Amino acid sequence: MPPVVEVLKENLKVLSDDPAIAGYAKSPLVFTDVTFALNNLERTVVIRHLDGKLVEAPFEVRKRVSQIYNPMPGRKLSEPRMFEPDNLNRILEEGEYTFILDNLCLHFEPFEAKFHEISSKVYQHVNENLKFDSLRSTRHFGPMAFFLAWHKIIDDLLIDMIRNDFLKNGVELICLLFKIKGIEADTSILEKLQEIDEIELLINRTVDAMLSKLDENKIQKTNEDLQIDELCFAFIQNSYYLEQRDFDFIVEIMTALSKINKDIKEEREKVKFNIEEFTNWYYGGADKVEEKRFLENFFLSDPELQDKVSISYLSHKEKYEEAIRKSTLVFKKIRDLQAQGRDGVEIYMALLGGMLGTSLLREGNPMSVHYVMFLPALMNHGTGDQQAEWISKAWNCNVIGTYAQTEMGHGTFIRGLETTATYDPKTKEFIINSPTITAYKWWPGGLGHTANYAIVIAQLYSLGQHHGIQPFIVQLRDEETHQPLPGITIGEIGNKVGMNTVNNGFLGFNNVRIPLHNMLMKNAKVLENGEFIKPKSSVLTYGTMMFVRVVILKDMAAYLSKAVTIAMRYSTVRRQSPIDPNQPEPKIIEHVTQQMKIFPAIAKVIVFKITAELLWEMYNQVTHELDKGDLERLPELHALACCLKAVCTNEATQAVQTCRLACGGHGYLNSSGFNDIYGSVTAAQTYEGENTVLFLQTARYLIKAWNQALNGEKLTPTVAYLKNYTNNLNQRDNWDGSPKGILRALQSTAAHKIALAHKHLEARKKFCSAEEAANQTGIELSAAAEVHCQAFLLHSAIEVLENAAKHSSPALAVVFRDVLELYAVDLAIRSLGHLLQFVNLKSIDIETLQGRLESALKKFKSSAIGIVDGFDIPDPVLGSTLGAYDGNVYERLLDAAKSSPLNQEDVNKSFHLYLKPFMKSNL
Amino acid sequence: MPPVVEVLKENLKVLSDDPAIAGYAKSPLVFTDVTFALNNLERTVVIRHLDGKLVEAPFEVRKRVSQIYNPMPGRKLSEPRMFEPDNLNRILEEGEYTFILDNLCLHFEPFEAKFHEISSKVYQHVNENLKFDSLRSTRHFGPMAFFLAWHKIIDDLLIDMIRNDFLKNGVELICLLFKIKGIEADTSILEKLQEIDEIELLINRTVDAMLSKLDENKIQKTNEDLQIDELCFAFIQNSYYLEQRDFDFIVEIMTALSKINKDIKEEREKVKFNIEEFTNWYYGGADKVEEKRFLENFFLSDPELQDKVSISYLSHKEKYEEAIRKSTLVFKKIRDLQAQGRDGVEIYMALLGGMLGTSLLREGNPMSVHYVMFLPALMNHGTGDQQAEWISKAWNCNVIGTYAQTEMGHGTFIRGLETTATYDPKTKEFIINSPTITAYKWWPGGLGHTANYAIVIAQLYSLGQHHGIQPFIVQLRDEETHQPLPGITIGEIGNKVGMNTVNNGFLGFNNVRIPLHNMLMKNAKVLENGEFIKPKSSVLTYGTMMFVRVVILKDMAAYLSKAVTIAMRYSTVRRQSPIDPNQPEPKIIEHVTQQMKIFPAIAKVIVFKITAELLWEMYNQVTHELDKGDLERLPELHALACCLKAVCTNEATQAVQTCRLACGGHGYLNSSGFNDIYGSVTAAQTYEGENTVLFLQTARYLIKAWNQALNGEKLTPTVAYLKNYTNNLNQRDNWDGSPKGILRALQSTAAHKIALAHKHLEARKKFCSAEEAANQTGIELSAAAEVHCQAFLLHSAIEVLENAAKHSSPALAVVFRDVLELYAVDLAIRSLGHLLQFVNLKSIDIETLQGRLESALKKFKSSAIGIVDGFDIPDPVLGSTLGAYDGNVYERLLDAAKSSPLNQEDVNKSFHLYLKPFMKSNL
Repeated sequence: MPPVVEVLKENLKVLSDDPAIAGYAKSPLVFTDVTFALNNLERTVVIRHLDGKLVEAPFEVRKRVSQIYNPMPGRKLSEPRMFEPDNLNRILEEGEYTFILDNLCLHFEPFEAKFHEISSKVYQHVNENLKFDSLRSTRHFGPMAFFLAWHKIIDDLLIDMIRNDFLKNGVELICLLFKIKGIEADTSILEKLQEIDEIELLINRTVDAMLSKLDENKIQKTNEDLQIDELCFAFIQNSYYLEQRDFDFIVEIMTALSKINKDIKEEREKVKFNIEEFTNWYYGGADKVEEKRFLENFFLSDPELQDKVSISYLSHKEKYEEAIRKSTLVFKKIRDLQAQGRDGVEIYMALLGGMLGTSLLREGNPMSVHYVMFLPALMNHGTGDQQAEWISKAWNCNVIGTYAQTEMGHGTFIRGLETTATYDPKTKEFIINSPTITAYKWWPGGLGHTANYAIVIAQLYSLGQHHGIQPFIVQLRDEETHQPLPGITIGEIGNKVGMNTVNNGFLGFNNVRIPLHNMLMKNAKVLENGEFIKPKSSVLTYGTMMFVRVVILKDMAAYLSKAVTIAMRYSTVRRQSPIDPNQPEPKIIEHVTQQMKIFPAIAKVIVFKITAELLWEMYNQVTHELDKGDLERLPELHALACCLKAVCTNEATQAVQTCRLACGGHGYLNSSGFNDIYGSVTAAQTYEGENTVLFLQTARYLIKAWNQALNGEKLTPTVAYLKNYTNNLNQRDNWDGSPKGILRALQSTAAHKIALAHKHLEARKKFCSAEEAANQTGIELSAAAEVHCQAFLLHSAIEVLENAAKHSSPALAVVFRDVLELYAVDLAIRSLGHLLQFVNLKSIDIETLQGRLESALKKFKSSAIGIVDGFDIPDPVLGSTLGAYDGNVYERLLDAAKSSPLNQEDVNKSFHLYLKPFMKSNL
Repeated sequence: MPPVVEVLKENLKVLSDDPAIAGYAKSPLVFTDVTFALNNLERTVVIRHLDGKLVEAPFEVRKRVSQIYNPMPGRKLSEPRMFEPDNLNRILEEGEYTFILDNLCLHFEPFEAKFHEISSKVYQHVNENLKFDSLRSTRHFGPMAFFLAWHKIIDDLLIDMIRNDFLKNGVELICLLFKIKGIEADTSILEKLQEIDEIELLINRTVDAMLSKLDENKIQKTNEDLQIDELCFAFIQNSYYLEQRDFDFIVEIMTALSKINKDIKEEREKVKFNIEEFTNWYYGGADKVEEKRFLENFFLSDPELQDKVSISYLSHKEKYEEAIRKSTLVFKKIRDLQAQGRDGVEIYMALLGGMLGTSLLREGNPMSVHYVMFLPALMNHGTGDQQAEWISKAWNCNVIGTYAQTEMGHGTFIRGLETTATYDPKTKEFIINSPTITAYKWWPGGLGHTANYAIVIAQLYSLGQHHGIQPFIVQLRDEETHQPLPGITIGEIGNKVGMNTVNNGFLGFNNVRIPLHNMLMKNAKVLENGEFIKPKSSVLTYGTMMFVRVVILKDMAAYLSKAVTIAMRYSTVRRQSPIDPNQPEPKIIEHVTQQMKIFPAIAKVIVFKITAELLWEMYNQVTHELDKGDLERLPELHALACCLKAVCTNEATQAVQTCRLACGGHGYLNSSGFNDIYGSVTAAQTYEGENTVLFLQTARYLIKAWNQALNGEKLTPTVAYLKNYTNNLNQRDNWDGSPKGILRALQSTAAHKIALAHKHLEARKKFCSAEEAANQTGIELSAAAEVHCQAFLLHSAIEVLENAAKHSSPALAVVFRDVLELYAVDLAIRSLGHLLQFVNLKSIDIETLQGRLESALKKFKSSAIGIVDGFDIPDPVLGSTLGAYDGNVYERLLDAAKSSPLNQEDVNKSFHLYLKPFMKSNL
């Protein structure tokens, strides 16, 4: 087939030269053999020229003569006008490639220069416009492939073949290139593929018919298909050809190699909004997204940071060693980035806690406390001199520090800490002691085996007087040998539900002496003579705390976004349980109960993210007021941050589990990724303030606010709604089902619950102390705080999503409204037990709500896959066999299983050691 | 001090012999020196006998004379009557030991025989009656110890010392024994203890005063105390003395060695009922409890079955190897028991799944499917011949089997299985194939590397016809080498949230041929010519299924009982967050919010257990009816088992997490035991029927029952309540807060919800198929099924607990009523969102309910620790640092941490490999 044929080079033979007849005729005479059934190319055509020579006719003449005496059907005598340059270009633009090529074959022979010229033009146009599909399964495809290989421009075709799951063709294309260009390579794969093909034919002969009966809708591959795929994958990835290409090309090939599952493709085609627009909104701007992707690419592409085997298979000790290897590498790479002039703070944020950081070190970074707590504590509590001494050492990681506050017996209530620092004026030293076992420091990250210094919070005693808790820098390990110093008992606290590479440690002190200047003295001081100087004002540490709570809220949104991405993608690929017994098994996302598990969780991701940003804004506003001396809103913000942290960590944990359960048995596998996510979110229910304690703190503020409301005092904005209810507690609000109406209903309910708790508190105070009364009313108080918080979350959702809808494209605006509707209605139904007590909801209202929930789910369905794609989580960050972008769940599951260390041997040694003797013992 | 002094042997010296004065006097004359201030023992007393000899007076005379001339205050001239045998015995019985011994010292000298006689009597009485306390801290304690050591009867005293935390005294006692009896032993410990004592004194001089100020209520030990304890522990455990004693004694010592925490002791003292009575009720009789304890002792005492290090620290591969070692050992030990004539079935039950089994193999037994599914499947589906061939081989474990049904792409919907078995009449073989990747078998326990045979469920094809799914016995591995056979692709599916030693596997077939007789043909058959013989009737497999559901319910009760035991004991030991700022930190169980986390979960344990038993009874009744040909109640039971499995696994998972969170940060540690429990309970949410699918199955039955009710047909007992609501759906029931009233309210709510779902179903059917209508109504349907199930659980609780209260001691009856009240009130409050829609609950009713909840918690508090103790879970079964019986949480936490493999070296190699180079790289 053309264009393999070279252009004809004519060497016209002179058959006879008869000068005698020169000038005899006025024009050359053409003679042709007109024998019937003769191939035109074999037909003899000669020309008697005017000079008397009898010469073979050139091809052009032969073609014309042949067409006259033995016409080829459809071929015109003159060259068709379609091949004129302008016409040709127009037809090319219209993509009518086969039309051109068919006509080319009709009107030209493959060895004609014109044929070569035009076909080359067509192939290049196809290649540049990636229109390979239009030639596929036509006779022109092979020639085009040959043409591209000949000219070494197969890249785009190769990618296209891989994308379309024509892996074998891809292999053949590369082999063709090797052959044409004489490249030495092992192309034995072609024979292997041939063999498998033959086997497959054999099997299909017996089983084929049955299979087609079994499930008409089958889209899965056979075993043999998978074998072929595996071979081809490996060949393409390793081919010499690729090694010579640049990075972008390889990335594209690798992306293309991961073929998209058809079901998920179908679901994506239903998405109506621009996903990138959503992503840019979600991450706060296209520049942020670009930065995010740059960092992801920079770190994830480093093979040293990729796991060959999931670390979950390693022993606890091996996990730690691997975490140290990786984290030192990560920080080295950050230095490289800094050397390139990239600002560090955002990068540290992304790598220490963010999605990227937790994807590189799935169970936590043993050095994160060094950056997140040790360094900030030096800055916050160190004098100028101390900062000069310590900060650059710490920043350069010449010392690695941790922050040792929590003790085995004391967490929440830090005044109860037992570690003592007793000043000895004789030697000008503090003596640090752990007087009891409960005084052992317990939990600090990196303390186990990583840090060599710690900031230790201890009860200060000087000259026999107690001066409360103070921070001290204590060296724990020798800087050269890393051996624990005398008097220091140190180790890690053992393995946990998750976060097993954080290296949480314990620490006991036995008369450990540190110099006077190791107490961080920016605030309180001890003089050489032992005299204690009080701090000028009690320090406002709201800043750090608020920052941490905002980070936790963002973390919850991030972790939950991973969980919903996994569950959503899996649910579009998994087919199970026919809805109609006569139909094939549907995608499980078609089951409404499945939608109910996933869609509200997707909405929560967005609302948690929004609320975190809002809280951060409020904090900045309040610090601004603070600078002007206005402390009024601080307690309000604290109360808000408390309940938000509690509600969001509780709900995220619950939702992550629901997502896992939504993936059935496969969700229980570690390779699904849920287990790591769960370990991280549930930890946040406890750290940085145990959730029940936090609810009670918020409740304390609410009770205070209620008293202010009763007294007609001014209320801070987030509790201002309380004043609407001081006078009409016995009235039930009427129901209004709009998001704003639901918000009012929640606020009314919160107010009533606060009022009730207040009433019971007051009643109890007659019989016991105020504190005991609060304890006895604890259940009601925390419930009230929770409803208050739910109202705030909905308030944020309404404010931000309605605004976002106004400033986005119409298609995306619809999505924002759908998210709000689903979030509000789901929240109302979840809260019915509370709402029905205080709001006039009639039976018909509840039925209407239920109906709205069902239609909200239905509406959400066409956007759901787009939203999770819009969270823009690269596969290596997601780390899930079930949730990868391509939806090839089963292949990944099997791959992951095969990578298990147990599967590297057919027979485990325990068979010989224990099992066989046991099995033979009773023969 | 006495009785170290030997009994005086008198050798009275003759001072002079004067026969001349013989017969001079009528009675002997006693002469005494009456010098003032002379010690009576040094005082010279002589007797001139009638025969004229002047002889030293015997002690009896000297004592009397001394008492006359130089009386000792209080000593009587004649022996007091209290020392007469009858009197003495009476006083001994009254326990007035010091009274006797004080008087003994007063009236007798230590070298008098009488002194020895009486003191020995007293010491023996004290020893036999274990009244050591009454002599402790008196001057008589030392002599008693000496006496017991002299007579080698220190056992009881030693135990008592250890129990009372006088470890040092115990060490001294053993050393005393060694010394007295001349036993060679290393007693250098005494000097070490002395040293530490001195250090302690030194420290206390500086820190003591502050400490006492810091926390008046301090009960914790100092570091030095702990060091001493550790030394003493080791010495006592290893002492030569103990090595010579029998097993019982050592067990008792070890038990005693674990000293009870004072806070938990205090809480136990408040328990008013007989815990053993509760235990006997809970386990169904004293004989059951005895059997349970026998088995626990038999297995747990085997050092080969005890973990030196928690297996959670091992790599995935090591865990598996350890599990094979242990499980073969467990089955060997079961054979030993059988050889002793113990019945096997109960033992297998306890060891395969029960609390004991899961404590020995915390992440599951790789051979359990062999016993639980492979063997029963052989029995249920094998012909007589097949059973003869396979069952004894399987029973003797000459082959290990598994049951391969679920596939990667097919779980719930088994008709969708893809594995094929095609009969080849030429060779009389079946050809087994996995035609696609989704056809790979996936999940079977033990399949990975343990089993060498499997019962494979596959689609049968013969003579081109499809005959549905059938079971086949397929050999997977060579019996000698364990190598996978040709055509078999096999391995484990990778690690998981929990249950990592079950060895779940995958399995692919590529033209694997098995003989015709390997199809299990008790029901359907294939003849040699390929003809298929249909089964006579479709087999009723309800039996196995029901059995499995009952087991799951019991498992949930068992796992949750572990969780609440841990949380409850920890909460009585942990002190945190002052309720009153001026008071020391209270036990956290004093916080009402903490009670709310734990007590309702304790009630759930009991209700789940009760309901499991009830379901089992119902099943037996129904099979009895079945034998009489009455199939009527089967679907009802199936529907009930479905929703019970779903509700109990969901609630147990939730409650286990709440218990973990109730233990704060420490609950997050693996050593708390919660992680293993969570991994097991949450798995049950998915296996044996995914919970949402199960709810929908129950709902289908409820909708059918509702239709029957509407048509006036007879209803089965568990749904009979529906008929009360067919005519008055618009009426709201009045509220009655008694447990039975709450039950009626739940039933009314369930009926209304079923009616609503029914209405919506019917409405939707007008626009789509019945199946799609059911799908769209799925959320409401499953909610209705859940409320129905909650009503049944409460129904069981009322029935069984009220009856139990009638048949138990008054104190225990109170407990049963408290459990019921708490369960019912908590359930009502949890269900308010449902109840308020359909029942007339006024505001005051809800306030009353809340008040009742609070008093129910209060009442429950005095029993809670007793109930969890009554669950009778031995420490090794519980496997928790936080939950051990003795409440020594902090010591165990630290011990567990220290056992971490990472802590076996001060410096991990990653420091030298990565950390140090990194730290030095920026100097």
